[in-house]
Amino acid sequence: MSTALRVGWIGTGVMGAPMAGHLLAAGHPVTAYNRSKDKTDKLVAAGASYAPTPAEVAKNSDVIFTIVGFPSDVRETYLGKTGICSVLQKGQIVVDMTTSQPSLAKEIAAAAAEKGAVSLDAPVSGGQAGAEGAKLTIMVGGDAGAYEKVLPMFQKLGKSVTRLGEAGSGQHCKLVNQILIAGHMLALAESLTYAKNCGIDPTTALNAVSAGAAGSWALSNLGPRILKDDYAAGFYVDHFVKDLGIALDEAKEMKLSLPMVALAEQMYIALQAQGHGRLGTQAITKVYESIRKPSC
Amino acid sequence: MSTALRVGWIGTGVMGAPMAGHLLAAGHPVTAYNRSKDKTDKLVAAGASYAPTPAEVAKNSDVIFTIVGFPSDVRETYLGKTGICSVLQKGQIVVDMTTSQPSLAKEIAAAAAEKGAVSLDAPVSGGQAGAEGAKLTIMVGGDAGAYEKVLPMFQKLGKSVTRLGEAGSGQHCKLVNQILIAGHMLALAESLTYAKNCGIDPTTALNAVSAGAAGSWALSNLGPRILKDDYAAGFYVDHFVKDLGIALDEAKEMKLSLPMVALAEQMYIALQAQGHGRLGTQAITKVYESIRKPSC
Repeated sequence: MSTALRVGWIGTGVMGAPMAGHLLAAGHPVTAYNRSKDKTDKLVAAGASYAPTPAEVAKNSDVIFTIVGFPSDVRETYLGKTGICSVLQKGQIVVDMTTSQPSLAKEIAAAAAEKGAVSLDAPVSGGQAGAEGAKLTIMVGGDAGAYEKVLPMFQKLGKSVTRLGEAGSGQHCKLVNQILIAGHMLALAESLTYAKNCGIDPTTALNAVSAGAAGSWALSNLGPRILKDDYAAGFYVDHFVKDLGIALDEAKEMKLSLPMVALAEQMYIALQAQGHGRLGTQAITKVYESIRKPSC
Repeated sequence: MSTALRVGWIGTGVMGAPMAGHLLAAGHPVTAYNRSKDKTDKLVAAGASYAPTPAEVAKNSDVIFTIVGFPSDVRETYLGKTGICSVLQKGQIVVDMTTSQPSLAKEIAAAAAEKGAVSLDAPVSGGQAGAEGAKLTIMVGGDAGAYEKVLPMFQKLGKSVTRLGEAGSGQHCKLVNQILIAGHMLALAESLTYAKNCGIDPTTALNAVSAGAAGSWALSNLGPRILKDDYAAGFYVDHFVKDLGIALDEAKEMKLSLPMVALAEQMYIALQAQGHGRLGTQAITKVYESIRKPSC
């Protein structure tokens, strides 16, 4: 039972805020921190406490969750001067839900262990809608005992929770997820570019193929949005570029050649170069529109 | 009603034989031809007639279906010396179900029109299992009146039948389908290569991600086969290379840049180079296995 466990929550952006809200609603006392303090206002209005640093959050919590932006933010949050690890004590559990580097997850696990605490890496997929609807997919690496203690809380946040193994395994699984999405996005963008230009109705074509062997979540969910020129972010281009970079770094370390991921990274960097880093990943079609015959 | 329409069927391979069988079972008289005659034996045993040339098939049929290998085979079947068009007459309908060139579909439509006949292009997706189970996706281009006449027969072969527009439109839609599959196969191969080498259990990882935003038909259906080293063909590598080549030729003609498709073609050519042209498309993982650190 997780009835009385005190929750710390660091990172209350579009993902973190609704996730922390679910744990608050489930009866956990929540202490929150965010670099932009105003993003904790709604949680505080709903009954959470605010703390001015990650360390202050950690002092008041049994389990500390983090979901921030980039690996550098994760590092600062855990290992910085006012970071979590500076005050961590025996028996506490930290859970990083940011998509970050497997090697950093191991480093944090070691730093936590030095204090007698335990760390889990638990990145998620499902985007803002999944966070709000508590329908995330959660991929967990780290100590099995800590996983069992946190599992009831994960189940308040997602519909699919899997432990993959020791520290870093959750991050590896998330990278598997992102590699799949990279290929699906290029497939979606290139097929739609073709469909829009070959003289058939793209919506009719997508409907014709989506139930068969060419079907994917991306096609069914993002295809119709692209055809309505709806590029609002379910997941930011800037964050996807970060994830692809991590995947390629890890693969290089393992001496794995992943040419499609490398191509996807280049296409998404091009999209950033066009000023679209804060659009959703489906905006990749904009790059294709800029490299075809202008009269089309 | 299609009750008494006499069917001609040219091409009785792994796809064509069960498809012709469905029309025979539905009560249509069937006259069949195949370059390797023995592949018509089972159909003839079930009540079909054999004819020694495409032209002889056409002479005895109201609607002539073709599903052969490559565009060169389609050209020979229709426009060769003993081809269908040499004897085609007013009122007859021809239906090419081979995945082939949109431009060739238009050429055949023009040749048929010269004789007062009508042509449809109607490539399919769903592979051998879809052909046997009458669950194909059928994408049709060509004359709307002819489409209405043939529709009851298409419905004996597939569960999803869509007319996309004039001659060549069915082929264009099939290429949209193949572009999607190209990206999905690279995504599957690169994600599995990563999963197999990063220290997590690949099956657990695929199960963790397949119900979410990384889900696809390819992942759910071909992922488990790859993990069992099952590379038997549902769809031949050799035929996929043909399809990708057609897609790239058409895109070049339209001045569309499709870098992912170009990469997929190269990876599949590498797979052919390794001697695996008659394996299924999921064998693409073999190329990735050959470009990673041998000790893995």
